[in-house]
Amino acid sequence: MVLYSKHIILEHEEFDGFLELEHGKIKALHKEFSGQYEDFSDFIILPGFIDIHIHGWATGSFWFEKNAGALKEMCRTLPYAGVTSYLATSGADTIEEIQRCIKAADEAYEADYPGAEMLGVHLEGPFINPRYRGMQREECCILPSLKVMEDLYNGFRNKELCRHMTIAVELEGAREVLKFCKEHRIQTAIGHSGATFAQIQEIKDAGVGGFTHTFSGMRGLHHREPGAAGAALYFDDMMCEFAKQTGMTVSHEVFDIAYRIKGSGRIIMTTDCSGLAQTQTEFDHYVRRMKFIKDRDMVRIVHYDGREEWMDPKDYQAVREIELSYIGSIRNMAKHSRVDWFDIMRMTSLNPARYIYVDDRKGSIAPGKDGDLTVVDSNLNLISVFCRGKEIRERDEICGK
Amino acid sequence: MVLYSKHIILEHEEFDGFLELEHGKIKALHKEFSGQYEDFSDFIILPGFIDIHIHGWATGSFWFEKNAGALKEMCRTLPYAGVTSYLATSGADTIEEIQRCIKAADEAYEADYPGAEMLGVHLEGPFINPRYRGMQREECCILPSLKVMEDLYNGFRNKELCRHMTIAVELEGAREVLKFCKEHRIQTAIGHSGATFAQIQEIKDAGVGGFTHTFSGMRGLHHREPGAAGAALYFDDMMCEFAKQTGMTVSHEVFDIAYRIKGSGRIIMTTDCSGLAQTQTEFDHYVRRMKFIKDRDMVRIVHYDGREEWMDPKDYQAVREIELSYIGSIRNMAKHSRVDWFDIMRMTSLNPARYIYVDDRKGSIAPGKDGDLTVVDSNLNLISVFCRGKEIRERDEICGK
Repeated sequence: MVLYSKHIILEHEEFDGFLELEHGKIKALHKEFSGQYEDFSDFIILPGFIDIHIHGWATGSFWFEKNAGALKEMCRTLPYAGVTSYLATSGADTIEEIQRCIKAADEAYEADYPGAEMLGVHLEGPFINPRYRGMQREECCILPSLKVMEDLYNGFRNKELCRHMTIAVELEGAREVLKFCKEHRIQTAIGHSGATFAQIQEIKDAGVGGFTHTFSGMRGLHHREPGAAGAALYFDDMMCEFAKQTGMTVSHEVFDIAYRIKGSGRIIMTTDCSGLAQTQTEFDHYVRRMKFIKDRDMVRIVHYDGREEWMDPKDYQAVREIELSYIGSIRNMAKHSRVDWFDIMRMTSLNPARYIYVDDRKGSIAPGKDGDLTVVDSNLNLISVFCRGKEIRERDEICGK
Repeated sequence: MVLYSKHIILEHEEFDGFLELEHGKIKALHKEFSGQYEDFSDFIILPGFIDIHIHGWATGSFWFEKNAGALKEMCRTLPYAGVTSYLATSGADTIEEIQRCIKAADEAYEADYPGAEMLGVHLEGPFINPRYRGMQREECCILPSLKVMEDLYNGFRNKELCRHMTIAVELEGAREVLKFCKEHRIQTAIGHSGATFAQIQEIKDAGVGGFTHTFSGMRGLHHREPGAAGAALYFDDMMCEFAKQTGMTVSHEVFDIAYRIKGSGRIIMTTDCSGLAQTQTEFDHYVRRMKFIKDRDMVRIVHYDGREEWMDPKDYQAVREIELSYIGSIRNMAKHSRVDWFDIMRMTSLNPARYIYVDDRKGSIAPGKDGDLTVVDSNLNLISVFCRGKEIRERDEICGK
């Protein structure tokens, strides 16, 4: 298959020409081409978005359901949000529950579901600081332990799927876990952490790559104690991951301050979506001031002000509006910060691919790389998505939130 | 008099040549010169430092003593800190006391003391928020009042001396005072303020120019409420004043974060020194954990840990080490942030001169401007200072702190 656009965003160049896909890969780029092609003339072809921090989306939740079926749903529907690959993200649950997640990831990897590619697992916890737990379970926040880490790692049939870990580096035992992660090419990020600036400065060379949902769940910036937030802004060699830019969790102005310091080379956009409709119990979302309650086959959403809604959690059209989508987050961010297509490409694809070591096949448009493409119009409306060469273009669903 | 250096820092150029002074002014710059000259070959000639926020220094304190004699001492000794002009800065005292300060400034202006030039007054308060008063007197923090402002302004015999005001813009009545200041070319800055980001966004077009001792005495940066600190970083058109960079009040890393966002074009270095030895009563410096107590002709310094020192407050050599000097602050800052000579020139001279509207005669090295020069070596040690053409070179004292 061949695509044409005036705006194919390569790593260092905006290319006007033809992109040839074959066997799920990008075969070649041509200036001229005489055969049949799909015409995206004025649209922008970006490398597919990679979400390295997503627990669930719409009809599937890895975090809540802990089974391969949830990942199958995420693979199916994430392209409608512009996402072509992702890290299934677990939370601070019991070790037994996290092992269930790991098994689900292995199973999904082997099944190789169509749609967005599940690249592996992001372990958000269990080694996090209960004081900064946010919506994680307090009783499951445990001290870093090399033994537990080895057990988790060994729980993976395919070890490569263990790709990323969020950890509170100030906790006793963190250094041993960081060392293990570095040796096994598991990227690590500071999150749900009370680490001071000095603690981060002291431990960063053990191999910490960045910060999880920068500003949230960490010690904030104070002018006498810069904290983890200050360290995130200060250290040029560390990456800042941001959760979806609703403008509520991190105000648009504070994101922009971070963007102006870090630049698009040191920011990774994620969603941190949960697939809230898939909760298996009662989930209290205190920031949004609403509870999600499983009620037989339905989900009941009870707002703090008393309003109630009922939804079928498996009805994609019904639940897709609950959380801001990846493309919606990027559109929102682009409204409030000065970004060009290269900035967007870096923050959504190139940076995350390099960060989790999949840039040999993801993260940019180049011959030999996977045929993962996200096509948008100039207003960042989604036009089409290609996952490993296969176009996914469900017109009704694809417009994202 | 003619000076030679390979490194004369003009506004847009590093000039290798000869600088001619005459009648207190810079007469000309020459590439070639055949007469006698003072040789500063490898030293750097900068426009003189302008400190727009200084209450007192060493043997003189405008804030504590409230008389022209204090200003005479400041004019005499500030060149030893690299400062060639300054704004005498009052505090939140009673209106009667502030009027005494104003009279002292008028008297000093008319006397035209030798040394650093007193350019006018920075009124730090009384319109500040008592919750963010820092070391100001709570009972003297009052709501902004146009009537009080007019009375203060009219207290000046020479109205031009009323140059700058620090104000808490969230307080009722602030808009009228800001309007008055704008009409009378009195620069205003937000300080000792609990203003939210939104409040600043709403009022900034009334003519607020910047922020006083950025980060200190204001609402800090939080990712959901950027506060005054966030506004200081965010708004490109507003200036950030920083008090002396000891690294304690504002950590070097947080200063550097601000520097990387604002750039040297939007930062003004000041000292906020008080001339602590000149306290007239007992002054509790809770940040430094020491008290300064007037005891007949001496000052007693009582550390919280019980240690005591006695000093003669009028002995410059004895008291000059109490507070970090302007040049010491710049040296300290330059150790922790990547600055070149142009950056230093802007933050110490060009920016403050423009900010308080004296750039017709101060702030840069150019023919026609005042002969205010600060000569340093490559490590920012003070070599010589020229105040309106007159060299001040007391070898023993000039090395600064």
